[in-house]
Amino acid sequence: MSHSIKQIAAALGAEAFGAVDLCVSGVAEPAMAGPQDLALAMNPKYAEALPAGQARAAMLWPGADWQALGLQAAIIAPRPRFAMSGLSAMMDPGQGYAPGIHPSAVIDPTADLAADVAVGPLAVIGPRVRIGAGSVIGPQCFIGADTVLGQGAFLREGVRIGARVSIGARFIAQPGAVIGGDGFSFVTPEQSSVERARDSLGDQGELRGQSYARIHSLGSVSIGDDVELGANTCIDRGTVRDTRIGNGVKVDNLTQIGHNVEIGNDSLICAQVGVAGSSRIGNNVVLGGQTGVSDNLFIGDHVITGGATKVLANVPAGRVMLGYPAMKMESHIEAYKGLRRLPRLFRDVAALQKAVSKLGKTD
Amino acid sequence: MSHSIKQIAAALGAEAFGAVDLCVSGVAEPAMAGPQDLALAMNPKYAEALPAGQARAAMLWPGADWQALGLQAAIIAPRPRFAMSGLSAMMDPGQGYAPGIHPSAVIDPTADLAADVAVGPLAVIGPRVRIGAGSVIGPQCFIGADTVLGQGAFLREGVRIGARVSIGARFIAQPGAVIGGDGFSFVTPEQSSVERARDSLGDQGELRGQSYARIHSLGSVSIGDDVELGANTCIDRGTVRDTRIGNGVKVDNLTQIGHNVEIGNDSLICAQVGVAGSSRIGNNVVLGGQTGVSDNLFIGDHVITGGATKVLANVPAGRVMLGYPAMKMESHIEAYKGLRRLPRLFRDVAALQKAVSKLGKTD
Amino acid sequence: MSHSIKQIAAALGAEAFGAVDLCVSGVAEPAMAGPQDLALAMNPKYAEALPAGQARAAMLWPGADWQALGLQAAIIAPRPRFAMSGLSAMMDPGQGYAPGIHPSAVIDPTADLAADVAVGPLAVIGPRVRIGAGSVIGPQCFIGADTVLGQGAFLREGVRIGARVSIGARFIAQPGAVIGGDGFSFVTPEQSSVERARDSLGDQGELRGQSYARIHSLGSVSIGDDVELGANTCIDRGTVRDTRIGNGVKVDNLTQIGHNVEIGNDSLICAQVGVAGSSRIGNNVVLGGQTGVSDNLFIGDHVITGGATKVLANVPAGRVMLGYPAMKMESHIEAYKGLRRLPRLFRDVAALQKAVSKLGKTD
Repeated sequence: MSHSIKQIAAALGAEAFGAVDLCVSGVAEPAMAGPQDLALAMNPKYAEALPAGQARAAMLWPGADWQALGLQAAIIAPRPRFAMSGLSAMMDPGQGYAPGIHPSAVIDPTADLAADVAVGPLAVIGPRVRIGAGSVIGPQCFIGADTVLGQGAFLREGVRIGARVSIGARFIAQPGAVIGGDGFSFVTPEQSSVERARDSLGDQGELRGQSYARIHSLGSVSIGDDVELGANTCIDRGTVRDTRIGNGVKVDNLTQIGHNVEIGNDSLICAQVGVAGSSRIGNNVVLGGQTGVSDNLFIGDHVITGGATKVLANVPAGRVMLGYPAMKMESHIEAYKGLRRLPRLFRDVAALQKAVSKLGKTD
Repeated sequence: MSHSIKQIAAALGAEAFGAVDLCVSGVAEPAMAGPQDLALAMNPKYAEALPAGQARAAMLWPGADWQALGLQAAIIAPRPRFAMSGLSAMMDPGQGYAPGIHPSAVIDPTADLAADVAVGPLAVIGPRVRIGAGSVIGPQCFIGADTVLGQGAFLREGVRIGARVSIGARFIAQPGAVIGGDGFSFVTPEQSSVERARDSLGDQGELRGQSYARIHSLGSVSIGDDVELGANTCIDRGTVRDTRIGNGVKVDNLTQIGHNVEIGNDSLICAQVGVAGSSRIGNNVVLGGQTGVSDNLFIGDHVITGGATKVLANVPAGRVMLGYPAMKMESHIEAYKGLRRLPRLFRDVAALQKAVSKLGKTD
Repeated sequence: MSHSIKQIAAALGAEAFGAVDLCVSGVAEPAMAGPQDLALAMNPKYAEALPAGQARAAMLWPGADWQALGLQAAIIAPRPRFAMSGLSAMMDPGQGYAPGIHPSAVIDPTADLAADVAVGPLAVIGPRVRIGAGSVIGPQCFIGADTVLGQGAFLREGVRIGARVSIGARFIAQPGAVIGGDGFSFVTPEQSSVERARDSLGDQGELRGQSYARIHSLGSVSIGDDVELGANTCIDRGTVRDTRIGNGVKVDNLTQIGHNVEIGNDSLICAQVGVAGSSRIGNNVVLGGQTGVSDNLFIGDHVITGGATKVLANVPAGRVMLGYPAMKMESHIEAYKGLRRLPRLFRDVAALQKAVSKLGKTD
């Protein structure tokens, strides 16, 4: 895991300065860096802490004077934040899973695993599953019947994938992610109070108790290439066709993707987001943490929602939204400024009423 | 899995038309239907896509002209959405779990399983557990000591049920659901700042650091018949008596049901809902996705909350609620219309102030 | 599990009255108490139900007249709520896990477990793991490479801890908790629309699709002493240094703690809270259920947030917050009173406009 400054810079497409043959074996914040660490000081503020640590080399911002910072070597990348991607991949010690197939894994004889696939202890792989080359199935994972995983998958411990799911290349899932639970779809024998309340915006009509009957999920889940799912995140099966996740989608922890949902390419879904059944999310969308999207909505391409935005209506492409219910961010900021000033407004209006009443009497 | 149109209609209590001996082996959306599929075109809008697919038979809405749609056969149900329940159950290929008890399962010798119970690979069943006839315990499930599961249970992979839980008939749990974690109940040696802030609506009093002591959960969880729990959903144990879930309750994914909570019959709890400790939810309640209910509250029968409603006070029976804090839906809609028009209101009041000031001077 | 009233009172530092050698084997609410139960009637309201049950002994509030309540014995503690901690610990029958190491557990030969550590069936313990004395590792748990667990840990079923995590003494984790999933950290090759929208408060600039590159999490997670984590709760690894949880922190179910987050000592994080990446939470903080904290914020010591508070800006020490966006609780209550009265305000202002216009004409 030791690399020279020269090697790292070459891998990142960055420039190396000074003692470029100096080797580092880890990265660290400037104040905590030891002599074997590459300090990360990607703006002048972080660089102030360099003297508190022992770094001999650092990754710096464009234009930084590495010699004035007392360093022996430096890497300067045009966009240091982006360089962190390649650098962190080079330096990642990984989870330490063993290669090969652990003897305690329970693998159906009809499953078809590429020769180099690793399967951790106590994993279960069902009938007719196919797993592409270079994949790593972590300890205690479950992969259901007829599911297909593309090449280069990496499943952390305890990931659960139901039957008939199809997943593209380079899939990553964090611990406890669940793909292919049944959709939450229930129906009452007669029109339900929720159907009536929705039609009337709030009136349930006559209150009658009914029990729910289950609609089984006959569809499954289709996931594109380069998708990553967070820990304990859930993606439900579709009712008739598959729930669909596009290429390059990244989903954080504890997020709920309901049945029949479609998410376009390169969208980012942050932690604890909920997307209710049958909603469609476009390409290059960003849903901030704890965002909620009601069912059967459409969120256009390039929409961004701030943290905890609750989307109760369609959102056209390109909008930046915030609040509950979701508004355009600038409207939200203006409305909430007003909300904070409301007590004063009430006082002003009361004063006006008094003044006008007095004026009226004067007349 | 192949059924004739006649058989399906009979099973659903629906009418069959045309070539009723035609067999189908799956269901599909109209545009994607192959010749072996029953197309689902339960309203005229969906039927428009029939020509794009190859369906020979479809499920249609009451009054539909199946011959004009170019079909050879049709099923017409009085409430097609409800018919989907029976139809989807007939057509469900399932998860493909094997029958019988997998040799890798770890089952305590004192556990009492009905003769036909299936137990998946690497499941763990604790001492004195009892499981009713026809139940399926999925791979990697855990069932704790002295827990009782009624007949016809279906646990997907990795469901975890703690000790002394009692569950009625026909229970379904999606992957990763947790029943019987300990309640979140902690106490400080002296009155805590939260207790003081609650009493005073916001004033903590003197700020003093205290550590928390744990209150153990001596109760367990009692669940009625026909309950379904979503993936990674959590139901905590009660402190002294059991947390209780009534008959026919359906809970979606990633939902939190706190200690001592009681939920009545036939209530629907959507994804990512949180019900805090000791709150009681009535019968036939619907809590929309991401709803939050504070602790020690009472939600009456037939209450409906819209998505992301945050309930901070008791709600009488029959109310339809929305917002944070929760208001009656019509009040919420009116209040939020006002919020959007607030900036204009501020301008109007400023103009009034100017006009009144001018009028005062005129006098 | 049977204890005399005298023994219990002594253990709790409480006073015993009456037939102090009477033994009880459980606790119960007054109405449901049997003759072997200690009834919990810690205020006069609860005591009213004592005659409905069969309790011979009860825990009562300071000053209660136990004889008038028809009891044979009583325990009176100065702060009964706090006494519940010790009492519930004495009376807890536990989960019934067997002692010792179950033969189906998969333990790396380089792992170092104290002599009395219990490991449940089908647990996996990785290379070089160290586990302190008296710890119980539940069924189906996973502990990754090089992780260190202090003495007296208690992991319920299916807890997952990734590589290189360090955890102090007396750690408790509920089922399905995940520690050490990778942080949600992605970067685009060029400045992203989110970065632009943040800089401009809502303007994304030119809309361009970009794919995300992953930043690996090189840090891990450090957890102090006396920490408890809820079911299916997730704590992500840090990017360069560890995510840090202080001593005495208690976290409820389904909570998300993002990468690089720091939480001080003795803080209480309720269910479904989300703390986004790199935010710092002080000591003795209480975050109510479903609270959200945006990334890179600072929450001072002794801050309390009410349920579902969404924190979008730093909060100074000692504040009590509520709402979305978070306001001081008293401001929130005043603002929301105003919001409910907004429709009337619009009518008042319209009436004023009419009156002033009339007055203007009169002039």
